[in-house]
Amino acid sequence: MNTTWLNEIQWTADGLVPVIAQQAGTGRVVMFAWMNRESLALTVENGYAVYWSRSRNRLWRKGEESGNQQKVINIQLDCDEDVILLEIEQQGGIACHTGRESCFYRTLENNEWVENSAVLKDPAEMYKK
Amino acid sequence: MNTTWLNEIQWTADGLVPVIAQQAGTGRVVMFAWMNRESLALTVENGYAVYWSRSRNRLWRKGEESGNQQKVINIQLDCDEDVILLEIEQQGGIACHTGRESCFYRTLENNEWVENSAVLKDPAEMYKK
Repeated sequence: MNTTWLNEIQWTADGLVPVIAQQAGTGRVVMFAWMNRESLALTVENGYAVYWSRSRNRLWRKGEESGNQQKVINIQLDCDEDVILLEIEQQGGIACHTGRESCFYRTLENNEWVENSAVLKDPAEMYKK
Repeated sequence: MNTTWLNEIQWTADGLVPVIAQQAGTGRVVMFAWMNRESLALTVENGYAVYWSRSRNRLWRKGEESGNQQKVINIQLDCDEDVILLEIEQQGGIACHTGRESCFYRTLENNEWVENSAVLKDPAEMYKK
């Protein structure tokens, strides 16, 4: 694979880049995560989002446990070349580990964070082995 | 102002939170930037986005030079309480300092970053004093 395009990204000192994932069609922003060089290359190769888990310090093939993979429609880069935007098709319609469509499930209303969307699936169901 | 809601945010060690700005209606993601506590409080108070510029190390009232302010429609928080999503109405239709609607103006096509949108206004026009 030609990987010249990877060199154009301004990686952090830790070798990461922030990634915004947005549902194709609706435009709903469903997730924010990080990728390293390897995970972004794998994302392009496989056509499904692979992130870098900073908490687990390893590759995180989105949906590896829950089955909720993200099929990548396109990959965009910002003006400073240090943020990636993914348009994705969220398999299962659930991006959040809480069982919701989007991780952004709280909206500020009158100085309070108020839930804006429902749990579609019990996380206990999503992550059972 | 009641600021309890600010305490629920998991700020970075530097006291910042990443912010995604998305055009209301179209869902176009136009920008990614950072806020500190003060800038987020000012954003809510004023109804227009105020960021924290890491390069200039100061408050950055979006549009202070270009006039391209961002009217805030709503503010959402993610499951880990460490990322903010703003739905905004972009004044002037230009969020990017390059004169484009969105900072995400390049799409990966056949291993190359290809421009996906046009310059709407010459930056020299936007930033002249």
